[in-house]
Amino acid sequence: MSAESHSQLPAVGGMPWLEELRTLLGNRVSVAAAVRDHHRTGVSHHAGAPPDAVVFPESTEEVSAVVRICARHRVPAIPFGTGTSAEDHVAAVRGGICIDLSGMNCILAVNTEDFDVVIQPGVTRKQLNEHLRDTGLFFPIDPGADASLGGMTATRASGTNAVRYGTMRDNVVSLQVVLPDGRIIRTARRARKSSAGYDLTRLYVGSEGTLGVVTEITLRVHPIPEAISAAVCSFTTVADAIDAVIQTIQAGIPVARIEFMDAVQMQACRAYSKLDHPAAPTLFYEFHGTPAGVEEQAVLASSIAAENGGGIFRWASSSEDRSRLWKARHDSYFAALALRPGASGWPTDVCVPLSRLAECVALTVADLKESGLVAPICAHAGDGNFHLILLIRMDDPDERAAAEALCDRLVRRAHAMDGTCTGEHGIGLGKLKHMIEEHGDAVSVMAAIKHALDPLEIMNPGKLVPDLG
Amino acid sequence: MSAESHSQLPAVGGMPWLEELRTLLGNRVSVAAAVRDHHRTGVSHHAGAPPDAVVFPESTEEVSAVVRICARHRVPAIPFGTGTSAEDHVAAVRGGICIDLSGMNCILAVNTEDFDVVIQPGVTRKQLNEHLRDTGLFFPIDPGADASLGGMTATRASGTNAVRYGTMRDNVVSLQVVLPDGRIIRTARRARKSSAGYDLTRLYVGSEGTLGVVTEITLRVHPIPEAISAAVCSFTTVADAIDAVIQTIQAGIPVARIEFMDAVQMQACRAYSKLDHPAAPTLFYEFHGTPAGVEEQAVLASSIAAENGGGIFRWASSSEDRSRLWKARHDSYFAALALRPGASGWPTDVCVPLSRLAECVALTVADLKESGLVAPICAHAGDGNFHLILLIRMDDPDERAAAEALCDRLVRRAHAMDGTCTGEHGIGLGKLKHMIEEHGDAVSVMAAIKHALDPLEIMNPGKLVPDLG
Repeated sequence: MSAESHSQLPAVGGMPWLEELRTLLGNRVSVAAAVRDHHRTGVSHHAGAPPDAVVFPESTEEVSAVVRICARHRVPAIPFGTGTSAEDHVAAVRGGICIDLSGMNCILAVNTEDFDVVIQPGVTRKQLNEHLRDTGLFFPIDPGADASLGGMTATRASGTNAVRYGTMRDNVVSLQVVLPDGRIIRTARRARKSSAGYDLTRLYVGSEGTLGVVTEITLRVHPIPEAISAAVCSFTTVADAIDAVIQTIQAGIPVARIEFMDAVQMQACRAYSKLDHPAAPTLFYEFHGTPAGVEEQAVLASSIAAENGGGIFRWASSSEDRSRLWKARHDSYFAALALRPGASGWPTDVCVPLSRLAECVALTVADLKESGLVAPICAHAGDGNFHLILLIRMDDPDERAAAEALCDRLVRRAHAMDGTCTGEHGIGLGKLKHMIEEHGDAVSVMAAIKHALDPLEIMNPGKLVPDLG
Repeated sequence: MSAESHSQLPAVGGMPWLEELRTLLGNRVSVAAAVRDHHRTGVSHHAGAPPDAVVFPESTEEVSAVVRICARHRVPAIPFGTGTSAEDHVAAVRGGICIDLSGMNCILAVNTEDFDVVIQPGVTRKQLNEHLRDTGLFFPIDPGADASLGGMTATRASGTNAVRYGTMRDNVVSLQVVLPDGRIIRTARRARKSSAGYDLTRLYVGSEGTLGVVTEITLRVHPIPEAISAAVCSFTTVADAIDAVIQTIQAGIPVARIEFMDAVQMQACRAYSKLDHPAAPTLFYEFHGTPAGVEEQAVLASSIAAENGGGIFRWASSSEDRSRLWKARHDSYFAALALRPGASGWPTDVCVPLSRLAECVALTVADLKESGLVAPICAHAGDGNFHLILLIRMDDPDERAAAEALCDRLVRRAHAMDGTCTGEHGIGLGKLKHMIEEHGDAVSVMAAIKHALDPLEIMNPGKLVPDLG
């Protein structure tokens, strides 16, 4: 953003909008190569593509003015949060202007009696929970990264607490959105529910920046439970562990987290996080409630685990033990990377009906073996959602191709089980090729909506909606 | 549907589509005045308008063929469930064909390990729960009427359990929809969550038949709790009762139901349902969980009630006592009617942030008094959603006008508190005039979606999206 970085400009003639942006935002416009490169992709194996410029607006009105400039010049506008997307949501495949919202990170209101907060999109999930700490409330959605809540809204993120608290879909009350023509709307009032018209809130949650820019978010928050306890239990087989999950939910136990790791992931966590649990299929539980309620839930869950061949139910009741356990779970990506030094992490996810989860994981483990690939597996088991972290040497084209082919088979396997090609990472560029197989003619409905709301095709073009040619 | 009823036909020349429908459906097409009149409106004060014909399809393919006929002839198609809409959703304001889906009432699959069921849209909520009884699962959403689940999907219905289990928005997994051009889509796979593209499921939930016909529904179901208990507590003021609600939720008590009735409604229930509770602001509670958990929740809730001036916390632990209590709650409409013999019930609802509920109810009670109108008030208090049942002599134009004016003020009051003009009844025709005030420019986004998906304007025209002329 310095004068120096401007020397790396393409000729202004190729960017007739640049002076308008500079008039609007001054030095909060950058065309520096390093800045553009920083905004080319997320945290995955994708190559991405740098935007022509990056802008750093500080208000909804500035975002609106930027989008109006984009519309006038027919130049793409790509919203950007923390750059932690796993499916290349921010790649500027048709060039254009990246709208970095990280500076819009104010918490505007905390309504403790209404169990909601109003925030700007650059607020991250950890920042929000830090801010909420003294209110007795918390925000439960926790994807691996400390992502921005704007990005989490755009990708319909979830995480380990979704089995109890839902996903972003369930926890966004209302949005302020800058439309592709620059107008500013609110998708809903702050009431907890409404039957007044189309659910625009849910349309924008998961729309990946293709229908407008989210500039304000009203989120539902939840009371911090009086008591929390966690436990770990190993199983002989994947199927036994998943049967325990199903029976735990059938028993009505309102488990807050029920996470699965396969033997390979546990081996990685033993090495990386010094967990001393066996390298076997494992469930991590967390229970929220009153002290007596948490105790009762845990006793019930442990007896269900035992009935399914589970080993010792190891408690982590102290706050330190719990933190250590969940830190290991959240560090599973780095633990995986350490399994194969020099390899890159290639994360992918699918989600299937719970009854098919064990089978889908088992077939995928067999497929990995046959392919000669290494990929630890974690699952948000209560949701039927699981992740592979493929460990791939990106400079080996054969290995890349094998990984690509394995991911395609994984999606087909999930589809055959009435599952989805992504439970929480989103489509971006990475899963675009699976949209028609997954949705059939419904893709044309999505395309019609995209065309109706963004007729100039300026909002994050090339993402989410495949070209129906 | 008899030969005789066909004698009441308008000239076929005015209905060039009629022969096509008869070829398709035989005697499952009716133009009899009585049948058309039965399909003119729901259960409210609205006048409605009869369709030109009513068809009774038995499969998705038949619905698709009917809609194709409608599209070819540019004739409106109006889906119909049980006719229990409160806001005139089914009125054939531009004539056309009513598609009565009550015959499509099969339960197609119960997936106990996945906590979902697949049903046809004519299945009613009570029919579903009857069917589920032996599976240990239940479906919690309970609007007053035994509505069809297709209609409940179309209006984004909720009811007394929403505070714990969510609304139709949260409990629909996937839909099969006949599009306005007759094509058949599925909005999502059966996985519990997905980030794969626009959330078409949520777009169709609450779309009131204006974007297509729902022909199959995958619903989330929940384990029947091991133990249930209920309780009733009277308060001195509305504000005390609502403060108890807020504090109960803040305390993390996972209350399954927390319903409010005002003094007038309680007086009505005393007379009609022989409840012996005082005619005072009252909360009805229900707790779900294990026996110990339910006991603990109830003790906590009762101490919070006491801190807010609540009277005796009267238990209803036996199944009979509970049934009696909730029957009184569900009969509150009829109890209200009995308050003023000869009057009609004019139900309306709004929803506000919880922190404003007491104030909104109090101002509305004062407004009723000043207007000289009688209307008991019930609230789904945990959601900030409340209902008036205005008791109006419909043959008195002054009284009708006063009721209309009071409802308009009620909506403006809710809007001023960042609430919505309807929490669960929907827009239909009845609330159409409030859409622009509620949504501003967002209405043009809804109109763009409507136009994109239904360019011929055949799907339930005149509803939900106001004419932006």
